[in-house]
Amino acid sequence: MEQQHSMYNRRDRAAKPGSAVRAGHTGDAQPPFQAPLATSNALAAELRIRIARGDWIEGEKLPSVRRLSEETGLHRLTVYKAYNLLKDEGLIESREKSGYFLTVSRRPVESGFGSVFKFRPASGGGQEPAEAGPPLPALLGELHSVDCRYQFSQALIDPLLLPNSYLAEEAKRVFDLYPRVLGTYAPLQGDEDLLAALRRYLAETCSFVPEGQELLVTNGAQEAIHLVCEALVRPGDAVLIEQPSYSVAIEIFKHRSARLVPVGIHPEGYDLEELEALMRRYRPVLFYLNPTFHNPTGRCVPAEQRKQLADLAEKYGCILVEDDAFRDIYFGTPPPPPIYGYDTAGNTIYVRSFSKYIFPGLRIGCMAARADIMRRLLTAKARSSGGTPLLNQKVFVHHFQSERSRRHLHKLRIALQLRKEAMETALEGSGWNWHSPSGGLSLWVELPEGVDPARLLADALNGGQGGETASFVPGSFFDPSGRLDRHIRLSYSLLNERRIAEGVALLREYAQRQSDR
Amino acid sequence: MEQQHSMYNRRDRAAKPGSAVRAGHTGDAQPPFQAPLATSNALAAELRIRIARGDWIEGEKLPSVRRLSEETGLHRLTVYKAYNLLKDEGLIESREKSGYFLTVSRRPVESGFGSVFKFRPASGGGQEPAEAGPPLPALLGELHSVDCRYQFSQALIDPLLLPNSYLAEEAKRVFDLYPRVLGTYAPLQGDEDLLAALRRYLAETCSFVPEGQELLVTNGAQEAIHLVCEALVRPGDAVLIEQPSYSVAIEIFKHRSARLVPVGIHPEGYDLEELEALMRRYRPVLFYLNPTFHNPTGRCVPAEQRKQLADLAEKYGCILVEDDAFRDIYFGTPPPPPIYGYDTAGNTIYVRSFSKYIFPGLRIGCMAARADIMRRLLTAKARSSGGTPLLNQKVFVHHFQSERSRRHLHKLRIALQLRKEAMETALEGSGWNWHSPSGGLSLWVELPEGVDPARLLADALNGGQGGETASFVPGSFFDPSGRLDRHIRLSYSLLNERRIAEGVALLREYAQRQSDR
Repeated sequence: MEQQHSMYNRRDRAAKPGSAVRAGHTGDAQPPFQAPLATSNALAAELRIRIARGDWIEGEKLPSVRRLSEETGLHRLTVYKAYNLLKDEGLIESREKSGYFLTVSRRPVESGFGSVFKFRPASGGGQEPAEAGPPLPALLGELHSVDCRYQFSQALIDPLLLPNSYLAEEAKRVFDLYPRVLGTYAPLQGDEDLLAALRRYLAETCSFVPEGQELLVTNGAQEAIHLVCEALVRPGDAVLIEQPSYSVAIEIFKHRSARLVPVGIHPEGYDLEELEALMRRYRPVLFYLNPTFHNPTGRCVPAEQRKQLADLAEKYGCILVEDDAFRDIYFGTPPPPPIYGYDTAGNTIYVRSFSKYIFPGLRIGCMAARADIMRRLLTAKARSSGGTPLLNQKVFVHHFQSERSRRHLHKLRIALQLRKEAMETALEGSGWNWHSPSGGLSLWVELPEGVDPARLLADALNGGQGGETASFVPGSFFDPSGRLDRHIRLSYSLLNERRIAEGVALLREYAQRQSDR
Repeated sequence: MEQQHSMYNRRDRAAKPGSAVRAGHTGDAQPPFQAPLATSNALAAELRIRIARGDWIEGEKLPSVRRLSEETGLHRLTVYKAYNLLKDEGLIESREKSGYFLTVSRRPVESGFGSVFKFRPASGGGQEPAEAGPPLPALLGELHSVDCRYQFSQALIDPLLLPNSYLAEEAKRVFDLYPRVLGTYAPLQGDEDLLAALRRYLAETCSFVPEGQELLVTNGAQEAIHLVCEALVRPGDAVLIEQPSYSVAIEIFKHRSARLVPVGIHPEGYDLEELEALMRRYRPVLFYLNPTFHNPTGRCVPAEQRKQLADLAEKYGCILVEDDAFRDIYFGTPPPPPIYGYDTAGNTIYVRSFSKYIFPGLRIGCMAARADIMRRLLTAKARSSGGTPLLNQKVFVHHFQSERSRRHLHKLRIALQLRKEAMETALEGSGWNWHSPSGGLSLWVELPEGVDPARLLADALNGGQGGETASFVPGSFFDPSGRLDRHIRLSYSLLNERRIAEGVALLREYAQRQSDR
């Protein structure tokens, strides 16, 4: 499947008479807003907004071509063309003689924390699932919140690997150092001390130093991606995104009514020829990428491609949004420097989370961008949340710049490598396939033929006949086109080696039962 | 000026031949998306998005009617109609024989904290200002960040009024109680302890208790307003908003390409007949209001109107977004309960900030809404920022539910009332007019004829010939139509009585000099 770099895979959608016409539309689709506004494009743009804003619920029938034509005063062919544009994007589906319907998405939001909605397995979990497959939690947050014995779904550091009491004592000192920290708003750009510490850190570990106004403290990487979307993406804009990719990012861009164009990521990086063809064809406003220990695959784009990526970005005026959440979690040698450092033309936005491994409870992240882009990001932040809370910044920086935090990170890498190896050992001989990652928190595993991830998840969550429960994330959650395939993400960061071995054995047992049926 | 409840005041725009035609368009403008999509409406909707997304900079010329007609294939009259819709909304302006231009807005963002952009007064601050008036800071955050002796611009509690060292000691205990607070993500809806404490507080002080899933912890009220906008407002939707109103809210709704319809707020509340007429005419999706010690006017909508507002909301399917940031800052008797409690039909969203007076450095707020609306708000929160950081919630709740916090709040009210009275005393005999508010942090003052707020601000920020500096917020910052008028906001919360007296005397002196010129 890694060889598929096409637009949304259309194989899942029923082939219909007229699909050649649709393909034709896709073929000469104009980059929206840059090309002259065709009326069908304008109508499609408006419909995208109405869909994003929830005018119709998933599966609901849209107005007929005839009715919409009457309502808008547009020619029926124009309406038909607009609907087919949306159909090609996977937003709507047509059913023969019934009309157009809003697509039912199977790809949920990864919220990165427990959701308020408790997952309730379908009644009779042990029974033969219906043909459409067993129900999955509608949000990744729901999945994470399921109470189960072996949690492989959350790519989060085991709290037991953090020096909690030490950190707590250290945090207390912040109140002595800054007695008014609770009574003060933080500057929009970030606390001065933290900005200075981040600059030192980036210079040492990432080979670049942002200028005074090129750095911004955010509420985690999630806010950073949101700000990028608010500041740079207009409804209908083409956005390149890896397939698979971080599910929160997919959701943010989709909500903005962006046209997502998937880009494959392989063990050796991207297919740059194909990437250039996509940039030439779709003129994307940005490419959201996670080139270093990519989530969920763990892949790392080699150094030689990084400069080429920066060149491509310049050539096509496409901003690279480089999400670098896992840089510090490497096994063996450190990864190549970020693309941001190779990019002398300033077409990269660097997005950095630290909450994966330092203080998840603080949600501190940062982003770097050249001054004119940063101005737009700052305006978006002023509008959306304002300055990141000062307390969080002070507690973070106090630990972040300490010698102790470096020693801790070193130990953390070793602990995670051991857990990764434990998981790989437990998977040996299973017939499940994966590339061993050299960093990150998860394995991206391909299940063998005959094992359906959704069915396996339902069995694992329900615990079969009185058995133990386990969780993982089906690959569809990371797919911008929402397809189900045979990949799953197994995170090894939350459980210790013994429990990893037990949990993987349990999953193998459920998979074996499924193959035997 | 309080009697003006019309759409954007058009007096500031040059009267042109053809304005009768434009007025006609406004008169029969359809509520967008609900009425049949007329092509000019569809084009206007798309243009609104392009404007919001920054396709043109302020003052830039838009494509000519002829060119846009050719590009879109739409009739020139359709394009002309679309442009005139936008012109009536104040988004664009026409200049005779020159075409259409993006309106230059004079109303900046209130960011509530210092901006990274340092305000630099125009060179030669003491010279006679140009006819267009002296330059103002482009963002309210810039204004707040100007270092001046008498700061009346920020409606923030003086940090010296907070029991900082007590709070710091109390906060430290949080780490003993919850040793893993730094290593844990918070649930999306909020920390259980904090949700329970908020329910108790709302029951005691607001006469309502949200059900289990009807309450959400947010990163201050600002995030709450943003979530409302994300979840409920579609580009082109009509939104009622008080004139004047909280500038961050204005900016958030404008960025969403909402059509803002101003509603006057008077000492005795709203003109309900007029409000109903606006609801009937524009079918607004929501009314953002601040009925209790309204920012910036300090007005309080009487109890008898609150039930009527809930009835109107139900009758017209208009959601009331009730921002209640100043409830606890009353002088004398407590204000009437929130509209939320009167609204048995569930058409109100309650937005509550505490960061104005407890822990501004934590930015904790909350919002309540009926379950189906809350589900949409939760989805928006999962997408934008995720759960509010756990540390902030734990530190907040620990103090919030203490007896000490109640005692502190009681003392804070007295201190603020004394400061308000000091400011009123200092203003006596000035010829400046205001209604004495019974709560809140600011006076809304009308300057006498002959004193221009922008000029006064420039003089005050620059300190005249070697004089002292002072700051306040001109009324235009709070006006959804961006007009300048003779009102200013003077906040009495940041300085003590002596400094208030000195600073107001200084402002009076600068105003007097202006009148004398």
